[in-house]
Amino acid sequence: MTNDVRAYVTDHSAELLADLDDWLRIPGISAQPEHRDDVIRSAEWFADACRRTGFPTVEIWPTAGMPTVYAEWPSADPDAPTVLVYGHHDVQPVDPIELWNTDPFDPTIDGPVLRARGASDDKGQMLFHLLGIRAHLAVTGAQAPAVTLKFLIEGEEESGSPHFEPLLAERRDRLDCDVIVITDTGMLAEDIPSAVTGMRGMVSAEVSFHGPDLDLHSGVFGGAVPNPADATARLAAALHDADGRVQIPGFYDDVLELTDRERELLAKVPFDQERFLATSKSRALAGEAGYSTLERLGARPTAEVNGIGGGYQGPGAKTIVPSDAFVKLSFRLVANQRPAAIRSAIEAFVAEHTPTGISSRITWEGEGVAPCLVPIDNPAYQALSNAICTAFDAELILPTREGGSGPEAALQKSLEAPMVFLGVGLPDDQIHAPNEKVTLSMLYKGAEAAAHLWREFAELGRKGLTG
Amino acid sequence: MTNDVRAYVTDHSAELLADLDDWLRIPGISAQPEHRDDVIRSAEWFADACRRTGFPTVEIWPTAGMPTVYAEWPSADPDAPTVLVYGHHDVQPVDPIELWNTDPFDPTIDGPVLRARGASDDKGQMLFHLLGIRAHLAVTGAQAPAVTLKFLIEGEEESGSPHFEPLLAERRDRLDCDVIVITDTGMLAEDIPSAVTGMRGMVSAEVSFHGPDLDLHSGVFGGAVPNPADATARLAAALHDADGRVQIPGFYDDVLELTDRERELLAKVPFDQERFLATSKSRALAGEAGYSTLERLGARPTAEVNGIGGGYQGPGAKTIVPSDAFVKLSFRLVANQRPAAIRSAIEAFVAEHTPTGISSRITWEGEGVAPCLVPIDNPAYQALSNAICTAFDAELILPTREGGSGPEAALQKSLEAPMVFLGVGLPDDQIHAPNEKVTLSMLYKGAEAAAHLWREFAELGRKGLTG
Repeated sequence: MTNDVRAYVTDHSAELLADLDDWLRIPGISAQPEHRDDVIRSAEWFADACRRTGFPTVEIWPTAGMPTVYAEWPSADPDAPTVLVYGHHDVQPVDPIELWNTDPFDPTIDGPVLRARGASDDKGQMLFHLLGIRAHLAVTGAQAPAVTLKFLIEGEEESGSPHFEPLLAERRDRLDCDVIVITDTGMLAEDIPSAVTGMRGMVSAEVSFHGPDLDLHSGVFGGAVPNPADATARLAAALHDADGRVQIPGFYDDVLELTDRERELLAKVPFDQERFLATSKSRALAGEAGYSTLERLGARPTAEVNGIGGGYQGPGAKTIVPSDAFVKLSFRLVANQRPAAIRSAIEAFVAEHTPTGISSRITWEGEGVAPCLVPIDNPAYQALSNAICTAFDAELILPTREGGSGPEAALQKSLEAPMVFLGVGLPDDQIHAPNEKVTLSMLYKGAEAAAHLWREFAELGRKGLTG
Repeated sequence: MTNDVRAYVTDHSAELLADLDDWLRIPGISAQPEHRDDVIRSAEWFADACRRTGFPTVEIWPTAGMPTVYAEWPSADPDAPTVLVYGHHDVQPVDPIELWNTDPFDPTIDGPVLRARGASDDKGQMLFHLLGIRAHLAVTGAQAPAVTLKFLIEGEEESGSPHFEPLLAERRDRLDCDVIVITDTGMLAEDIPSAVTGMRGMVSAEVSFHGPDLDLHSGVFGGAVPNPADATARLAAALHDADGRVQIPGFYDDVLELTDRERELLAKVPFDQERFLATSKSRALAGEAGYSTLERLGARPTAEVNGIGGGYQGPGAKTIVPSDAFVKLSFRLVANQRPAAIRSAIEAFVAEHTPTGISSRITWEGEGVAPCLVPIDNPAYQALSNAICTAFDAELILPTREGGSGPEAALQKSLEAPMVFLGVGLPDDQIHAPNEKVTLSMLYKGAEAAAHLWREFAELGRKGLTG
């Protein structure tokens, strides 16, 4: 079976390359209104590719913004699990264009890589799926996949998915599934197969403090009236203790601690401190005591000051007691923290840190985003691990965690199904940057892994998947 | 003698009124270049008034900005003390002009008060001095004052005295004196004679913190790199403990504590808390525990956050770890704190509060201003107290303290003589505001007090004055 899949993918890799060359020429930049028609063309191109692959149902779903492609291919077995694959067909802007060595929309093969905007994020990965399905059908000899496949390929992921949640609500009845496969992430290295197992959620807010109703002369009033800039600084400073632990009462109550096995696997993930410092242009590491940098980034919640302001900010000095000050805060959340509970804890903390004579106000940025977690002992993750190990001739995949999140939390919340991440981008793919590339061998491995994954899921069955 | 002085002032009050009416018509606004010629005319007017009063030496001293008037009248007694009187002939701008009920440069008598820009600050007070000298001469029957008088009347006090220190350096040899009399302040009320005994000094600086060389995505890097906005908040928050005590090591080392007698007298100064809160539009008092509001404002040093900034300050949220942040701080100083020592203490404090991976930089706003103090057991202050008590038929004057300072510190530093404050403005004079007024009876009392003061100083003699 392994060799059959690999042989099919190898024999048909030119099809993937030809599709890539065609699709990557469409500059479907969702953030730029002048590319509106290109995003629509991009959706139509992918819908047609799904039809060519054999999907019996292919639809383009309009939204208030850019369209989503939906494709459905029922298994012949009515009891087979249903898998929903999420990805996106839109791409990032190309600015600064002068830093590109080739035309971002004229795909160029350069030895083992192909360069173009969208090559890795996310068109290349969408196309490995189509090749993977053809491989899966070829080796099983069936007319339909062993699982029911639903592809939900968004057109606004690169502009913040503003219409994704309404779309999920509107189309909820079509999207029932037993497992969700996210294909918009990457692996640690070509020879270190891995899968994302967590994405942090977030709440963010501006906290503003109001003191005297006007800026006061600090010579006349300084030392005798409360100062809102002082209150702002004190709130921000009170967020952490000297060990980098967040000091908001209850903040860690719902945090699911890493298991020993997770810490053991995470410790195997290569981490190049020099490279991390060079990338972040930071002079030191920092963070919560007792955790590694990768644990801090993926598995631990944070409180961060994103901005602070108040009083006189111009050149030189102006000796005032300011009337107003504010701080913008964001809190990255991990499983099983709940945005609503964290918001309440922050509200109590701000109230406690509002001095007499100062008023405070919290302006929330939306309701917040819940964190995502893939438990590594989950059957869906085991199936994913088997499929990737087979494709990569590996014995183990490493679980990784991402610091931020996209629309995954909304998907998980709406569909209430286990979620796994099958993505083959590499850290040096330069997604969102000039000279984006994809390593072609990773796409072929992705196609193999997908072909194996549908078999793995079918073997587990619905009961095995959902426990 | 008292009745002689009072009788002379009463009999000649019309001269003061006529001079006021004339001089106040000159709009000598030093901050507005279009009034440059008016400020020069104002200096010439006052120089001429000094000549009319009898000063044998009257000069107009040019500066890089507006001119200062210098007048000198030697005592017949070569051993008599020399007194330097400081005041100013320039006035504040009149905006917002629409809030004036009368033309600011058409002096208007309204019952007990006269309204015009400069009536109280400082032309009225300069003119009580000229009447006071004439009263002093009339009652002593002498051709020259009992002390050598030097009048130094600045033309840029209302625009920050930018050329005052260079002028003091340039003319230092002319300005030797045994005591300095500042006439640019006020009293607590018509029936509560008082004198300023202290003015706070200041150092101020911007402290900036630099972290990563670029703003970082807080999803990707948050929780693992040091945040300069956090460092800024921590520095600002560390300035005070919960009791409002400044936490910079050594900050209070040189502070001259209030004596029991000073606290006792300061406690007699009426303080209307409701009025203070209404004026400051603040909802509560604050400050260093263990001190009254008047003590906090006048006799205690402070650390104040004047401004703070860093990271994202626009609408909504931007989830970054900022690259830079800063805080603008000012420190009001009291006797005997020295700006240089305080700057050193702050430098050590900032260094101690600069976390690993963050760099800090301090930009000082000049060298700072030393505080002024008039010890109430000083002979010059006793002479002042006697003169004011005689003029006001009072048994006691209350010592007050001002929160900020003007060019007084530069005068004291340059001339190294004891300093006293003889000023008769009232808290409701609306100096620097629309509808400035002066209470005419206060000017007459000022003239009487000045006449008595020259006699008091002469009786003390140089030895008695300088100890």
